[in-house]
Amino acid sequence: MNQDYIVPDVWSIIEEGFEPSRVKSSESLFSLGNGAMGQRANFEEAYSGPTFQGSYIGGVYYPDKTRVGWWKNGYPEYFAKVINAPSWIGIGVTVDGEALDLNRCTEIKGYRREFHMKEGWYRRSFQARLRNGARVAVEATRFLSMAHGELGAIKYSITLLEKGGTIALEPYLDSGITNEDSNWDDQFWQSTRVVSEGARACIEAHTLKTFFHTCTFMEAHLTLDGAEIGNEPEVREEPTYVGHRYTVEVPEGQTLTLYKYGGYTVDLNHPKEGLMQAAWKVLGTARKKGFDGLLEEQRQAWARIWEMSDITIEGDVKAQQGIRFNILQLNQTYTGRDSRLNIGPKGFTGEKYGGSTYWDTEAYCIPFYMATKDQFVARNLLKYRYNHLEKAIENAAKLGFSKGAALYPMVTMNGEECHNEWEITFEEIHRNSAIAYAIYNYYRYTGDYTYIPDMGLEVLIGIARFWYQRASFSEPKQQYVILGVTGPNEYENNVNNNWYTNYSARWCIRFCLEQLRKVKDGYQEDYRRIIGHTRLTEVETEKWKKVADQMYLPYSEEHKVYLQQDGFLDKELIPVSELDRTQRPLNQKWSWDRILRSPYIKQADTLQGFYFFEEHFTLEELERHFDFYEPFTVHESSLSPCVHSIQAARLNRMDQAYEFYLRTSRLDLDDYNKEVHEGLHITSMAGTWMSIVEGFGGLRVINDKLNFHPRIPKQWKSYSFKLNFRGRILKVTVTPGKASFHLDAEEEMSIRVNGNRVVLPPQETVHV
Amino acid sequence: MNQDYIVPDVWSIIEEGFEPSRVKSSESLFSLGNGAMGQRANFEEAYSGPTFQGSYIGGVYYPDKTRVGWWKNGYPEYFAKVINAPSWIGIGVTVDGEALDLNRCTEIKGYRREFHMKEGWYRRSFQARLRNGARVAVEATRFLSMAHGELGAIKYSITLLEKGGTIALEPYLDSGITNEDSNWDDQFWQSTRVVSEGARACIEAHTLKTFFHTCTFMEAHLTLDGAEIGNEPEVREEPTYVGHRYTVEVPEGQTLTLYKYGGYTVDLNHPKEGLMQAAWKVLGTARKKGFDGLLEEQRQAWARIWEMSDITIEGDVKAQQGIRFNILQLNQTYTGRDSRLNIGPKGFTGEKYGGSTYWDTEAYCIPFYMATKDQFVARNLLKYRYNHLEKAIENAAKLGFSKGAALYPMVTMNGEECHNEWEITFEEIHRNSAIAYAIYNYYRYTGDYTYIPDMGLEVLIGIARFWYQRASFSEPKQQYVILGVTGPNEYENNVNNNWYTNYSARWCIRFCLEQLRKVKDGYQEDYRRIIGHTRLTEVETEKWKKVADQMYLPYSEEHKVYLQQDGFLDKELIPVSELDRTQRPLNQKWSWDRILRSPYIKQADTLQGFYFFEEHFTLEELERHFDFYEPFTVHESSLSPCVHSIQAARLNRMDQAYEFYLRTSRLDLDDYNKEVHEGLHITSMAGTWMSIVEGFGGLRVINDKLNFHPRIPKQWKSYSFKLNFRGRILKVTVTPGKASFHLDAEEEMSIRVNGNRVVLPPQETVHV
Repeated sequence: MNQDYIVPDVWSIIEEGFEPSRVKSSESLFSLGNGAMGQRANFEEAYSGPTFQGSYIGGVYYPDKTRVGWWKNGYPEYFAKVINAPSWIGIGVTVDGEALDLNRCTEIKGYRREFHMKEGWYRRSFQARLRNGARVAVEATRFLSMAHGELGAIKYSITLLEKGGTIALEPYLDSGITNEDSNWDDQFWQSTRVVSEGARACIEAHTLKTFFHTCTFMEAHLTLDGAEIGNEPEVREEPTYVGHRYTVEVPEGQTLTLYKYGGYTVDLNHPKEGLMQAAWKVLGTARKKGFDGLLEEQRQAWARIWEMSDITIEGDVKAQQGIRFNILQLNQTYTGRDSRLNIGPKGFTGEKYGGSTYWDTEAYCIPFYMATKDQFVARNLLKYRYNHLEKAIENAAKLGFSKGAALYPMVTMNGEECHNEWEITFEEIHRNSAIAYAIYNYYRYTGDYTYIPDMGLEVLIGIARFWYQRASFSEPKQQYVILGVTGPNEYENNVNNNWYTNYSARWCIRFCLEQLRKVKDGYQEDYRRIIGHTRLTEVETEKWKKVADQMYLPYSEEHKVYLQQDGFLDKELIPVSELDRTQRPLNQKWSWDRILRSPYIKQADTLQGFYFFEEHFTLEELERHFDFYEPFTVHESSLSPCVHSIQAARLNRMDQAYEFYLRTSRLDLDDYNKEVHEGLHITSMAGTWMSIVEGFGGLRVINDKLNFHPRIPKQWKSYSFKLNFRGRILKVTVTPGKASFHLDAEEEMSIRVNGNRVVLPPQETVHV
Repeated sequence: MNQDYIVPDVWSIIEEGFEPSRVKSSESLFSLGNGAMGQRANFEEAYSGPTFQGSYIGGVYYPDKTRVGWWKNGYPEYFAKVINAPSWIGIGVTVDGEALDLNRCTEIKGYRREFHMKEGWYRRSFQARLRNGARVAVEATRFLSMAHGELGAIKYSITLLEKGGTIALEPYLDSGITNEDSNWDDQFWQSTRVVSEGARACIEAHTLKTFFHTCTFMEAHLTLDGAEIGNEPEVREEPTYVGHRYTVEVPEGQTLTLYKYGGYTVDLNHPKEGLMQAAWKVLGTARKKGFDGLLEEQRQAWARIWEMSDITIEGDVKAQQGIRFNILQLNQTYTGRDSRLNIGPKGFTGEKYGGSTYWDTEAYCIPFYMATKDQFVARNLLKYRYNHLEKAIENAAKLGFSKGAALYPMVTMNGEECHNEWEITFEEIHRNSAIAYAIYNYYRYTGDYTYIPDMGLEVLIGIARFWYQRASFSEPKQQYVILGVTGPNEYENNVNNNWYTNYSARWCIRFCLEQLRKVKDGYQEDYRRIIGHTRLTEVETEKWKKVADQMYLPYSEEHKVYLQQDGFLDKELIPVSELDRTQRPLNQKWSWDRILRSPYIKQADTLQGFYFFEEHFTLEELERHFDFYEPFTVHESSLSPCVHSIQAARLNRMDQAYEFYLRTSRLDLDDYNKEVHEGLHITSMAGTWMSIVEGFGGLRVINDKLNFHPRIPKQWKSYSFKLNFRGRILKVTVTPGKASFHLDAEEEMSIRVNGNRVVLPPQETVHV
């Protein structure tokens, strides 16, 4: 564990004491989001120390010109990147003419940050002595409204402790922002209008190239010891700045409070000529409800979220804090209301990994959203890929595929590829399988078949066509092979016959063929539309079938395991446990060639197949493969521990499962990878949820029924989680030796627990 | 063939007619060099059309900050790059106040460029009408002195054709230059002093970071119709510019001629505080000899070069022009006098491929220099790598190797790696073998064993240590394997057991062990020094031996061929001849993954091994491998056709050999790859020479004897070449059905022709 400054607490993330070297990490950890926008926990007042400024608007991106060392044919010329947006949180603070800047204060006491996860607000408080001797107490509370996606609110209070003086507060908007992740130091934003009207102001700005038009707005009012102050602000306007300066004489001990409302209106949701009007309307709502009213709404909104998605853990404060932090961040990142949005690996907490959507969404995030939200949320995530199908077909065509074969991008914002390392962009093609798998998984969990005839089948056809074309026939093997790929384990590049890729490709083709039959039988009209649109023929599907039936799967007779890829056994198979600890993490200590020729595995690869297709294999097979591959696995991807935790639990290795769980749940809080300052690992947080629900709880959906194999780590007294299963709410509580199920539904529901059928009557708790 | 504007001529490169779209290509094709410096054939007078300005000084480089898309551990932070240097060739020309600029002239007639290869000078002439109506005839002759490495000369004549007028000529120096190949638009040069003294001037400038101090200098004088003009120039000085303006009233029909001498003195060769004095001294020599005297020296110097290195071809003007162009450029690039220099793939003709030295030098260039120069030249090329041994050991250490293992960089200027694609930098490690092979080749050809105890053995030990450590033991194969490499065929990346790599690695170890024995026996003192220095033990060499003896070599029993790499036969083996022509060149038409999984070969890979180690294999084996691999070879590297030409000739397939020969010899003149505007392919030019000497002539050195198997393409009447073999000069002339040998030596020498011993008396011609 690399840091332990976050104070353990079951409902809050707390930092105590000011430490400049932690500012960037804390800016990530205390990040705020409401699905529509988000921001790093930058200070409201000026700060001249090291900081990473970040405000982000969902769906607003910039096509940054690609930067590579050596150009390869087929690389995208530009790629979409989540960008730093104009900021509305700033408040300039001066006391008797001296700016408040924690980097320049002579004394800081009682510095504390808290993110109150239960209620969804963030507060920072401290006492500081400025260079001019003034001593102040500050408390700043901030939240982004879950009820009003375009709105955030700040309550900024300052008290003069030793003597009265003149405080100037200048709430401002700033659109003169830069991006740390810019490839060529391009300017991403163009500001077009700065408006100031009474207490409110806005800046209209649009992104260059993509022309997303935005209006960043604010309104402020002040109180002194609770009494409203009617001051007119002094207005300062610049091309990318507007500030409203309020200067107030404040007696010692009295508290000056500034309430600031701010946010964005964007032409994704409004006509672009009406952005300012829309902004004024949002501010009108804010004024009417007031800070306390908005905060109360915020509490209620988060209460509803927690009601459904909370996981409780008794007997382990850090584990409790960890899982709630993960659930908080997932909900801050994606609410599922907008099918144009998706779940970026860093959410709204940083810039790294240009673009928003990875296969993480389908492989790791969908189960969480299916189980804790209404099913339209997961359906929106699937629809996102359906909307990008044409782009995926274009992407495949750029790589030489034809006739509607679809290759989804490795990273994308708008459906176009945003990655440019050949070993990933061109070769990590298993992402296609995860997208097909999510369609299967969605239907399995929700029972909503309509998505397949409506949209899913066309995606499946594009993917099956890709796999059919991508396989080639090997004369020596007399089977179809898939050459030159990168599997989920990115510590191998350009390998032949990655088992996971071949196996999942075969599954994709077969699953598509099965859905074709089902849609043909049950949804004739959709079938005709789809066949008309895709021009699919039986000749073609016969060819697919042949490739699937003759797909080569590398296997070792000696070890009785599927081989991660051709030639895996030629490596020096020294387990990770025998590696010198100083050599870890490998990706920081070893050159790339050494990693590649080593047997070390970054994240589940063959085992990812055993996770997705668990029912295809026996428990003994799982155990044999787990025992073969896990000892070579270094888990240097944030997505690695969760799959292994689930499998270790299934194998009844609870100590190991717990160890993996800890690694995933507090990855960012404890900064295992020493990179939290760059932002949080949002998508892996859904894996933490899976570790508990699918791992410890043993949840599986088999033949439309929930199955559980509840286990509990010996460190815990109990844990509980809830599931929304097809409109019925099931609460599962596990204590050592006992599992309780409470069904909130109209009718009884039968489940299986450790293989035995259990009937749950409505509104009753059943103990097993 | 993509262009055919170069007029066929046996001794000159000629362009006729002005075509702006050809300017950049011609700037490459007419490039000048004298081993110490070089320059693209940029115009002396202003030119506002598309041009690629380039002047280069041997050994002067800049460490440009690396640019990559995604950083990999072990990449160099900076890499050395040949950079554009201050220019001394410029002459501003105005006629009656209007600047002469071919891009703005209203009429251009009689435009002609000629590079007179025999005499080593370049001339451009034309008549043009300026916008103000003035009509001029211009003739500019330029050369870089082979006799004086720091000096070049220009004779620039201008005649007013229709009426007299005022001509202003402003010879100038310009150090405000930029690099097209800069990664981050850094400034590479800092100018520190501009000096003007009478007719001479200089600019002192140094490179940033590397601090190479240079003095760029010039001196000019004028004649009018041959009569010296005593004008004092008007001096124009700026921080990176100095110009001397001469304004002369010129009557119609009279010719104003400006003689300009210029060049560089560099602190590689002079104390840095004495650069200007050294420059004045060079100019003193120039003044004394005068333009005609220097030109006469130039003719003599080139006569000496051609005397030894010329290849004549009768009956095929284009082939004759092609081979002479290649020999010219090789001699312009590298003279062998300075062991700090090497042969850059673009020589002094462009910027692409940062850094100067590739394995091209050892694999393709050394035979040419051994046979056409004194043997110290090739020895200097070997010594270059000896001088970089410590850096090669550091380079290997960065990648995790230890105990003196050496990995030479893929690309280098100063011994440090200058490449940053992982598949090349970290994996194209066969370069090490070429460096060992060159040591063997040098000894085989020159008979000079002393290089090995002096320097070569330490290099061989570092390389053997590398191969020993880089191999690993495969349990299934019970042999040593080399995993994760890129072979000479860069259309495969990260493959296992590239046959060429494994085979040459084994050879390196064995060759090193053999030299250890020989040095131990014959050079005890050197042996003790080397063992003391390298701390080599018998335990270690025993381990090397075991790895060499148990090296795995992939082989197909079915095809009876060594396999390029593991899994090669799993590919779809469709020969190149069945590929759609519109898909070529693959590297411009296909995405990288498609190239990688295809069987297509960029340049000789397995066949490179058959070239280097020809005597290890039977003719039948060569034929079988040639027939297996060549049909999959796309020859998209400039280094590909020569090896195949040599092997086709050996297999008596003269039509094919000739076809390959044409591709290599006129690669740039005919711009096969549509990229000649970026510069010439210098190192492949040595391959052209090998195609004739080793291919058609069948030269081999076996047991200290020259062996020939002369053949002649049916398109030719005769060809001849000369060899310097251990101080004896042999001229070989081949006509259909006959080969003649003329020996210039003190004593007789026996050679083998078609396997039969032939004794050559001194100074006689023997016909076979």
